[in-house]
Amino acid sequence: MPSAIDFHFDFSSPYAYFASTQVDALAARHGRQCRWRPMLLAPAFQASGNVRLIDQPMKGVYSRHDWDRVARLHGIPYGLPDPFPVATVAAARAFWWLDATRPELAKPFGHAIFAAYFADGRNISEREVVAEVGASLGIAPADLLAAIELPEIKARLRQETEGAIADGVFGAPFLVVDGEPFWGFDRLPMVEEWLRRGGW
Amino acid sequence: MPSAIDFHFDFSSPYAYFASTQVDALAARHGRQCRWRPMLLAPAFQASGNVRLIDQPMKGVYSRHDWDRVARLHGIPYGLPDPFPVATVAAARAFWWLDATRPELAKPFGHAIFAAYFADGRNISEREVVAEVGASLGIAPADLLAAIELPEIKARLRQETEGAIADGVFGAPFLVVDGEPFWGFDRLPMVEEWLRRGGW
Repeated sequence: MPSAIDFHFDFSSPYAYFASTQVDALAARHGRQCRWRPMLLAPAFQASGNVRLIDQPMKGVYSRHDWDRVARLHGIPYGLPDPFPVATVAAARAFWWLDATRPELAKPFGHAIFAAYFADGRNISEREVVAEVGASLGIAPADLLAAIELPEIKARLRQETEGAIADGVFGAPFLVVDGEPFWGFDRLPMVEEWLRRGGW
Repeated sequence: MPSAIDFHFDFSSPYAYFASTQVDALAARHGRQCRWRPMLLAPAFQASGNVRLIDQPMKGVYSRHDWDRVARLHGIPYGLPDPFPVATVAAARAFWWLDATRPELAKPFGHAIFAAYFADGRNISEREVVAEVGASLGIAPADLLAAIELPEIKARLRQETEGAIADGVFGAPFLVVDGEPFWGFDRLPMVEEWLRRGGW
């Protein structure tokens, strides 16, 4: 069986949200699994000298316009949330806890977190909001709130972020196919071509 | 007749070079002209807080790899030149001089400059090299070398760069279709879709 496609992202990235609506189908078309790997982008930006799009004078204006445009093109429910961006520690930890304990819920939870933030404008930096999103999938809020304080879950997200940076991940979405890196939502067609041809 | 597509670029951008091999055919498929508009990226980077890809710790490594990969995919002759990047004042001024005086030569000259730098590894920051590239198209070197010192040609490039920045151009390639901005070689398929649908 060919190896899974790694999908590195931060729950606060609009382009990662857009990608999340397509990556599993893309992988499946080529007989692959897609492994969702939430991380924290802030340390990656620090390591790479990257700056949040929204804070860049001209690129920020372009990006706001582009997020709306991309969402319209693909029919993805989207509005720029306020506040934006936000810290996604609680959401990412909850994902990794589910991944370790109830893996069948991890991706549905990921989709629900993205939708809560970008479609419904809820503040996913708040742990209570994360717990409510989990509750909509039948996850007991108390369990989730306890889990995201567990040392091993904290360590899991830290390792994930550090490992991604060590592997060259500097932005999101960032896909890796058999070691080949692809950065950006715009690159999904190239990922597809890479899978179709087996590289070039 | 629908308005021309504006193609803003710096002759030192690999992604702009890749785009230059496709933009005219793309425009023609939709009954449009493509207007080549060389500028200097350095002031645009200053205005936008952008940093040259090659100077960014992690994105620089990714970009070098990506330029090779994109060139292979599209069958474009390419090698990372040394030195890279370079100042393209002489080449851009020569383009605008041709655009004003012998417009039928402007795009052939633009293609030849890109190829000299990215396919043949010649240092297009040197005015003598720019003059030799012109000579290959029948342009007298003495005429070109004199032209790029003319105050009105210097002013033309300055205005072009300032105008592009005022219009929100922060990187290259940067295409504008009826006021709609598209940044990056990756966006050519979206430009095509925009032209096909007349926007969305």
